[in-house]
Amino acid sequence: MALSTYLSRVQFDFGAVSLIQDELDYLGIVRPLVVTDPGVKNAQLLDRLVEHMNSDYLVYSDTPANPTEQAVLAALAVFSDGGCDGVVALGGGSPIDLAKAVALLHSHGGLINDYNVQTGGSAKIGDITPIIAIPTTAGTGAEVGRACVMTLADGTKCNVVNLNLIPKTVICDPELTLGLPPMITAATGIDALSHGIETYVSKQINPPAEGLALDCIRRIASNIEKAYFDGTDRSARWEMLAGALEGGMVLQKGLGAVHALSDPLGELKLHHGTLNAVIMPHVVELNRDSAREKYQTIARVIGLKDPDGLVDWLRDLNTTFSMPSSLGAMGVTEEVIPDIAGKAARTHLSKTNPRPMAAEDYIGLLHGLL
Amino acid sequence: MALSTYLSRVQFDFGAVSLIQDELDYLGIVRPLVVTDPGVKNAQLLDRLVEHMNSDYLVYSDTPANPTEQAVLAALAVFSDGGCDGVVALGGGSPIDLAKAVALLHSHGGLINDYNVQTGGSAKIGDITPIIAIPTTAGTGAEVGRACVMTLADGTKCNVVNLNLIPKTVICDPELTLGLPPMITAATGIDALSHGIETYVSKQINPPAEGLALDCIRRIASNIEKAYFDGTDRSARWEMLAGALEGGMVLQKGLGAVHALSDPLGELKLHHGTLNAVIMPHVVELNRDSAREKYQTIARVIGLKDPDGLVDWLRDLNTTFSMPSSLGAMGVTEEVIPDIAGKAARTHLSKTNPRPMAAEDYIGLLHGLL
Repeated sequence: MALSTYLSRVQFDFGAVSLIQDELDYLGIVRPLVVTDPGVKNAQLLDRLVEHMNSDYLVYSDTPANPTEQAVLAALAVFSDGGCDGVVALGGGSPIDLAKAVALLHSHGGLINDYNVQTGGSAKIGDITPIIAIPTTAGTGAEVGRACVMTLADGTKCNVVNLNLIPKTVICDPELTLGLPPMITAATGIDALSHGIETYVSKQINPPAEGLALDCIRRIASNIEKAYFDGTDRSARWEMLAGALEGGMVLQKGLGAVHALSDPLGELKLHHGTLNAVIMPHVVELNRDSAREKYQTIARVIGLKDPDGLVDWLRDLNTTFSMPSSLGAMGVTEEVIPDIAGKAARTHLSKTNPRPMAAEDYIGLLHGLL
Repeated sequence: MALSTYLSRVQFDFGAVSLIQDELDYLGIVRPLVVTDPGVKNAQLLDRLVEHMNSDYLVYSDTPANPTEQAVLAALAVFSDGGCDGVVALGGGSPIDLAKAVALLHSHGGLINDYNVQTGGSAKIGDITPIIAIPTTAGTGAEVGRACVMTLADGTKCNVVNLNLIPKTVICDPELTLGLPPMITAATGIDALSHGIETYVSKQINPPAEGLALDCIRRIASNIEKAYFDGTDRSARWEMLAGALEGGMVLQKGLGAVHALSDPLGELKLHHGTLNAVIMPHVVELNRDSAREKYQTIARVIGLKDPDGLVDWLRDLNTTFSMPSSLGAMGVTEEVIPDIAGKAARTHLSKTNPRPMAAEDYIGLLHGLL
């Protein structure tokens, strides 16, 4: 087994899930709450985790696809009533984000919105209840991320961002991803790819993140189709999970217009990765003159003959995966454009896009995307 | 200015040294000891640092080329007598390693050898006195490294390895490296390159380190000659410092036979980077069949036409930089071979070399290197 240590302690290899009890002991967690979702539970992944746990654990398995404040409070009640002292998140971005919110509110009290990054609340966050994150998709990178996105009671999204939200230990076991259906493999994989591409071209200076972003892109680009067409390809699953991990580590460099749009669009209950897949070619095209050299480096890393072929390659990838042809095909209608564009222009994610993005720019983008 | 956060907090850009007081305040250091060496002081780099400090600081500027236990005790006396509460290391690997030893002994007491990794002493290390590291060469990566190498009173080398030795904050300012002489630029640059190459092919699993190692290799390979022939090339100096930083971050993946040899040879007071430059082509050749695919990936990243051209490229680089043609040319004689080979085979650095290395293997290598 292999140990990496950056800000998170990462156990990465086939069978790494068997280390769960060691990692609980390492963090001194004696009564963990395992947070997961129905899909993960039905896929027997929960069983494959808890069979390696001697601890007296509790489970909350009702995490919704886009985690809500309501679900956080329900899980927090289980955590508190059960006298838990740590959270184990098993699943994709949703259970991991929910676990972060539970650990935050348990240690700090208050409501999610008290820690909203938009209102400066995130800065109040200190050490939180320890979290062990075990990703079962190769996508969000939430397992090493400092952000937590929740849908509040009023339906709006709340971003909480602080280094203390990063799980203390991450267990990446590619075997847990072998059964991932092709469509989820593609959507979450393109999400990871979008992290590599958006952070690599972002305006922030962070040399190591550039290296990690390019390696994320290389791993995902050369394995996403293999994993899509043959989910049992162990080497492809290993590389996809490694790429997604790297994609999570580089989020600190800042994202861009793709995520600035997919976040508010997520409030319409649309899949985050699928949104990014549909939006990304349009954003890369719009950004081209502002980040041409970097897009060409990406094309070289992917192995494209045409140095400016990134947009077409992304379009072809969407076709291969039968992604929706447009946001319209996903059910997005003209009426929501002004609201979405306004939210996109206001988010911190817009600030690091290579090209300045105002509401009008997003309105133009969205019209082209319908 | 740009902030990265991995295990260290890294401020990276031209002029970053002006942030020193902010970073001292961030860590709550009110009376720092600045540890440096005569070369750095004579190059006026110490002046360029302290002009940005309001703190009431002290200075120890007598760090020897290969830091000794004696120097550590001298610096520790200045630190303690002066009532210091933090260390600022300014220089190459020597002042940074010395600063780590001072911070360790100040917070933990005892002697360096009590914390020797070979005897398990390193495991005893907890939080240490805070360190801010400011590299003035693009080489060792000691600024983000968990290791500290000291020459003990009896002349032997002592390796101390613990995550708590990693400086709390790193300030990378490429402007501090503009005046680095060509020979030091080459020797320290090849040291950084050797970190990328040895860790990339090491047997440990650490996916993010692979990405960082390849990016380290790419940056150093495409800029080391520019920086050697024109030390004022700002872009080349920026890339060299970024590559060295990445090379330091990946040391956790484990080195190999090059460093297994250069460490004991360093006890003969030979320059670490120059030793690595002379030794590396021979080790890459010896390892070739055990890591051929990875060496070919490295050749691709460097942009070599011949997929197996890494050895020749390294040899040509040594010729370009007028490196010594052999260890013999550096004054190493046949008598020391058995001792050096034995030490190399015993060090933890040998364990991650792609090919198993016994004392006989090192004896063969050393004979070819004389």
